[in-house]
Amino acid sequence: MPEKTPRIAVDAMGGDIGPRVNVPAAMQVAREGIHITLVGDADVLRAELARHKGASELPITIHHASQVVGMDEKPSDGLRRKKDSSIQVACQLVKDGLADGVVSAGNSGASVACGMFVLGRIKGVERPALASFLPTEKNPVVLIDVGANVDSKPFHLAQFGIMGDVLARDVLGVERPRVGLLSIGEEEGKGNVMVKEAFDLLKQTSLNFVGNVEGRDIFTGDLDVAVCDGFVGNICLKLSEGLGRSFGRVLKRELKRHVLSRMGAALSMGSLKNFARMLDYAEYGGAPLLGLKSILIVCHGASNIKAMTNAIRMAVTFVRKESHEHLAIELAAHKELGQFSRHKVQEELSQPA
Amino acid sequence: MPEKTPRIAVDAMGGDIGPRVNVPAAMQVAREGIHITLVGDADVLRAELARHKGASELPITIHHASQVVGMDEKPSDGLRRKKDSSIQVACQLVKDGLADGVVSAGNSGASVACGMFVLGRIKGVERPALASFLPTEKNPVVLIDVGANVDSKPFHLAQFGIMGDVLARDVLGVERPRVGLLSIGEEEGKGNVMVKEAFDLLKQTSLNFVGNVEGRDIFTGDLDVAVCDGFVGNICLKLSEGLGRSFGRVLKRELKRHVLSRMGAALSMGSLKNFARMLDYAEYGGAPLLGLKSILIVCHGASNIKAMTNAIRMAVTFVRKESHEHLAIELAAHKELGQFSRHKVQEELSQPA
Repeated sequence: MPEKTPRIAVDAMGGDIGPRVNVPAAMQVAREGIHITLVGDADVLRAELARHKGASELPITIHHASQVVGMDEKPSDGLRRKKDSSIQVACQLVKDGLADGVVSAGNSGASVACGMFVLGRIKGVERPALASFLPTEKNPVVLIDVGANVDSKPFHLAQFGIMGDVLARDVLGVERPRVGLLSIGEEEGKGNVMVKEAFDLLKQTSLNFVGNVEGRDIFTGDLDVAVCDGFVGNICLKLSEGLGRSFGRVLKRELKRHVLSRMGAALSMGSLKNFARMLDYAEYGGAPLLGLKSILIVCHGASNIKAMTNAIRMAVTFVRKESHEHLAIELAAHKELGQFSRHKVQEELSQPA
Repeated sequence: MPEKTPRIAVDAMGGDIGPRVNVPAAMQVAREGIHITLVGDADVLRAELARHKGASELPITIHHASQVVGMDEKPSDGLRRKKDSSIQVACQLVKDGLADGVVSAGNSGASVACGMFVLGRIKGVERPALASFLPTEKNPVVLIDVGANVDSKPFHLAQFGIMGDVLARDVLGVERPRVGLLSIGEEEGKGNVMVKEAFDLLKQTSLNFVGNVEGRDIFTGDLDVAVCDGFVGNICLKLSEGLGRSFGRVLKRELKRHVLSRMGAALSMGSLKNFARMLDYAEYGGAPLLGLKSILIVCHGASNIKAMTNAIRMAVTFVRKESHEHLAIELAAHKELGQFSRHKVQEELSQPA
């Protein structure tokens, strides 16, 4: 059976830079044979495409959307007042079966809101969560949630663990992912009130739950999934990113300091490039919002062309592997998922507002 | 007026390794003319001292304590059931005026508990907080709290901000420290419930409050104090430490991979050493527990001799600069401190249990 070509809707107006990043990234993936729909101001997008040679021969279509949710706008306002925003229209294309997944570097709160209310949640999932792949000394680790939710409840964390487990198996190919709960000590009973309760819930699941893990355990590669509240996860993600950049700058400065070192730096350029690649979060592109009925990849507002290209490729991988359907099936198979849900999930809430 | 020689009580039994680390570290500082009291099992400590040449000529005394709080023991149990533990006896020496400060690499929960109930809190401080100095691209930054409290209240965070400000001025010599609140977005209104309320409180202070900061802002050097709950701070501290080590290992591996790189590595050894020093948290030694009536430095359980030596030196600096008295005066001058205190501080709670 020939594989269906994935069709990705790109929120072309999203991000700190917007079309100047999103359009070249979309073109890059279109060159690989993927159908892309650029969603946003048609005039702006046509003009941006015209700047690039060969754009007209690529499988790219433009779908007009007259509004944009600003990066600092309140997500709920963006959802209610801007029904024709690029992110909402992109999600609607997927909902209507005209695309298979959405990628956006726009206001991430608005992306999460559109994901929840336009695409809808998988049955049993109360809070979708953003999963990020972090580089380690060995294989990547899934950090979940990195910012879709703050002030999570313990059973949300347990659900994040189940979703992270499915992701690690399906996308990273880990057979029996080691799932840890991010806390401030390895022993059971360490942590804040939320984490202590989440520990008890995760213990009851069929997951390969390895208990509490500490910040220092994330990067050794001895863990596959690290579970935390979105407030903690977002701080960890940005701290890692910032520390990586600072290390890179200090290293460069140190290597340039002496003549001998300058020679050394020249000689070890290949190695340093490999090293820098590990530090560069652009390699991983975006964070999938897990728990939705379709695929939504949320990118850093400051994404460059490389990061955006990799995020669109990530959406393609999810479509090709049918990861999303797989996730729904796997989640349904986890009896614990429903059990943790304090409130019956109201499917009507998942309908467009 | 000649300066009084500082007298430091070292919890000689504390830490993953214990006397084998604590005694050589204490000797190192004693060689610099500091009076040290080693607190712990007198036989064990005498035997350890006997292993080192010239120990008998140093200004070191042993104070016997028959018990040790285990690293995994519940802090409250350690406090109540082990009245003759090395950490509790060390704090009592300070309380009795026989030493000027305490350093411990033992069970940090027990150290915090002994600090609160034996040394006592400065008037108006409801929750002492652990402050850590993190390296950045420029000057060190104070991260507070890194684990004395979990499940903090918003006004605790405001108090941490005030304490961090005093520390940055007094110890780092920053004239008007830039105090930021660790959150998941720079705009006001970003964060969880606790952080949003803390933001409103910090805005009302006379601090140079720069608003929310993100994880990536910590290491640039454009901030002097980062305020957070101890759960978040502890995870950040350990994540930074772990990431630093992983980077170091990957870098070494990458540099060794090719012959050319091996030459490069040899040539740039001096530079890499400078770089490694920035990564090495042992340089900073320990974390002062701020808000107490005396000086208590809490060290990593895995501290090596270098880290422990630097932690004892940190205690000496605090004593010499009278930072602790300074802190009490400065805290009293901050009218906001009392204002944030929901409950009147009960001084009797600060007495030994």
